[in-house]
Amino acid sequence: MREFTVPVERLVEHFRKLPGIGIKSAQRLAFHILNMPREEAQDFADAILSARETVTRCKICQNLTDRDECVLCSDPARDHSLICVVSDPRDVAAIERTREYNGVYHVLHGVLSPLAHIGPDDLTVRELTLRVGHGDIRELIMATNPDTEGEATAVYLSRLLKPLGVKITRLAYGIPVGGHLEFADEITLSRALDGRQLMD
Amino acid sequence: MREFTVPVERLVEHFRKLPGIGIKSAQRLAFHILNMPREEAQDFADAILSARETVTRCKICQNLTDRDECVLCSDPARDHSLICVVSDPRDVAAIERTREYNGVYHVLHGVLSPLAHIGPDDLTVRELTLRVGHGDIRELIMATNPDTEGEATAVYLSRLLKPLGVKITRLAYGIPVGGHLEFADEITLSRALDGRQLMD
Repeated sequence: MREFTVPVERLVEHFRKLPGIGIKSAQRLAFHILNMPREEAQDFADAILSARETVTRCKICQNLTDRDECVLCSDPARDHSLICVVSDPRDVAAIERTREYNGVYHVLHGVLSPLAHIGPDDLTVRELTLRVGHGDIRELIMATNPDTEGEATAVYLSRLLKPLGVKITRLAYGIPVGGHLEFADEITLSRALDGRQLMD
Repeated sequence: MREFTVPVERLVEHFRKLPGIGIKSAQRLAFHILNMPREEAQDFADAILSARETVTRCKICQNLTDRDECVLCSDPARDHSLICVVSDPRDVAAIERTREYNGVYHVLHGVLSPLAHIGPDDLTVRELTLRVGHGDIRELIMATNPDTEGEATAVYLSRLLKPLGVKITRLAYGIPVGGHLEFADEITLSRALDGRQLMD
């Protein structure tokens, strides 16, 4: 049954197709648009088009950018021999927020997932292999998520790229800073024990 | 700090301004747009513009419509002497879903709220008064939400319009069907007691 006038229903349907948006939220969002100043709705529509049209992948690290090479890859102050491999552009943003890392990145745009039929060809594995093969890469830091698929992806890449003679490391597992031992799950705890370090 | 490329940040900002969307959701939505087929992004942008441009208020009941008179007001099969007064177009949709109501509506587009500086002039009170004054209206059903502001709005309208000689009723309060007494709040329970009805 159609509950609202056609243009409203159409907008609700679009919002509803977005991840994490149910029917009630979709309606609330659509009504919000209807009550927006006209210029703001215009600018929103334009932002959608412009993002979809102008955003592309950096030809080096595959991160999202609106130019040929992203700001990080074209920054001479970064260490281009150190590559941090992540699954998602948001992971780049998370690591940049630490202000601790001065290398560059490689964005896989996903993880290997046999169940979802996502294989190496669906990720930017070929681009990474070419980078390691051609450039003076000193170290690859695997920074995929510490879950089954992220782990499997890191292991796969490590086996694929080690023969090219590059050092491969991965982020440390452990208790989150500020976390409580009693609330840590067993796997995290046992990884934290395995990875224990000398105190100095 | 800018975390993503400009067009992405701009889109994230737009999503973030929508009600109930935090920064993480806004990023997830923006990334979803980036991965959409181009035509779908185009159609989404177009849906926003088209909703904002073509949706207007029915000149009779003030509900949202893309024509002069909404489908309900222009339906000769409905009882146009019975008006259900609601605060929001979503309430019209909710009542229509019951398939029990055959009258028409009046959408206030809000409720009186002194704290938010919303007075009768910010709602469609004038339009309702004119409808009652001009037409052969038999009954007004107040169906604002059963909260303080909805209640105050119903009382205000009732006092304003009764002198025009129209019958004014309001939706029954009570225990929701399928609800449990033990979980009903005291106010609902006492309203349910007040409104108790003879069993037949």
